[in-house]
Amino acid sequence: MTPKAIVLFSGGLDSTTTLAIAKNAGYDLFAISFNYGQRHKVEIEKAKVIAEHMEVKEHRIINMDLRQFGHSALTDSIDVPTHREEEKISSSIPVTYVPARNTIFLSYALAYAEVKKCENIFIGVNSVDYSGYPDCRPEFITAFETLANLATKTGVEGLSKVKIHIPLIKMTKAEIIKKGLNLGVNYGLTHSCYSPSETELACGVCDSCLLRLKGFKKVGVEDPLKYR
Amino acid sequence: MTPKAIVLFSGGLDSTTTLAIAKNAGYDLFAISFNYGQRHKVEIEKAKVIAEHMEVKEHRIINMDLRQFGHSALTDSIDVPTHREEEKISSSIPVTYVPARNTIFLSYALAYAEVKKCENIFIGVNSVDYSGYPDCRPEFITAFETLANLATKTGVEGLSKVKIHIPLIKMTKAEIIKKGLNLGVNYGLTHSCYSPSETELACGVCDSCLLRLKGFKKVGVEDPLKYR
Repeated sequence: MTPKAIVLFSGGLDSTTTLAIAKNAGYDLFAISFNYGQRHKVEIEKAKVIAEHMEVKEHRIINMDLRQFGHSALTDSIDVPTHREEEKISSSIPVTYVPARNTIFLSYALAYAEVKKCENIFIGVNSVDYSGYPDCRPEFITAFETLANLATKTGVEGLSKVKIHIPLIKMTKAEIIKKGLNLGVNYGLTHSCYSPSETELACGVCDSCLLRLKGFKKVGVEDPLKYR
Repeated sequence: MTPKAIVLFSGGLDSTTTLAIAKNAGYDLFAISFNYGQRHKVEIEKAKVIAEHMEVKEHRIINMDLRQFGHSALTDSIDVPTHREEEKISSSIPVTYVPARNTIFLSYALAYAEVKKCENIFIGVNSVDYSGYPDCRPEFITAFETLANLATKTGVEGLSKVKIHIPLIKMTKAEIIKKGLNLGVNYGLTHSCYSPSETELACGVCDSCLLRLKGFKKVGVEDPLKYR
């Protein structure tokens, strides 16, 4: 039987590459996306298109409202910072941080994994570009894996171990893009911008766009995405 | 400044007692309830009344839909078991188990705690009556506490430690009721039934009702709740 993988999937560059890596490793794909009141809602629509394109077996979209907790530029009316230097992007906790977001997302992925009797969860966290996000660190993921194996029926019955896969954790943006291109990812379908315009064009100046553009430049390939 | 506590609060007997314990310990109370597609939705209405009665500073009700993951008698059309013997209730994983529920609930509580700059989270889990639920075990809570201190800004900035309080963990139902009565809890406002009738009367025969009734009997006090 083909092994299954739950993949946390936003439709962005990182999670799409993660999906391609899981697919290439031979897993049947079960993607889970979150509609969490984020500003960049276009994510969900892009995610649906990519999921179909990459032949996922099932794509669950979870509606939730993290806006009620506020305190992030991704869900609040705080301005998304622009034109920042790379060092600044990666060294501090940015205002785009959403409280406990990855903990909540992974918890839902765990419920999904339990229901699907699936032992593998993939998440495209990265500690190079996002060292400022506490819940993107490898030690956070390790702690979640420990929790996962205590939290579920599976853990109690000792039938199998839940494994959290983090294939991008040590990769630079350029390395991620190179990997994805080798696996045939169509990055024209993905999106990264924290504050896309009404016409869905990426801004080109937020942290996420800046990192993406720099990554493509380093690889020497043109970003197929349209910018304002 | 009065310390704050986030309390996971369903309006049931255990979480109401937990709220009273946190109040008695001198915390300002911030209650969080979940509307998760459960059959016993009357919980939420009861929880609102109790929260006001117990003077919580804020009561957040999180809407989410765990039905989409199915596989539990609390959210599905699986029958809630009745008239079971106590041994059977506590020794196996019951069909009323909801996949990864406490992991998801605690993740939201963590987000709330971070936003409120609060270091204390109270949850009324109990490993005596519910030894069959993997996410009610002390080792699960310890793992979540470790995770919590890696997951958040607080953890990264080393400002303070998140502590998960589990005051009921080793108590029998009778001990919980005795404790609550000593703290002045009005158990007539709480509810426990897994499948209340349209008129909100408890069934008296599901696992939860059976444990509650036995607890009151042992204490020698009449349960103020109305049963069918």
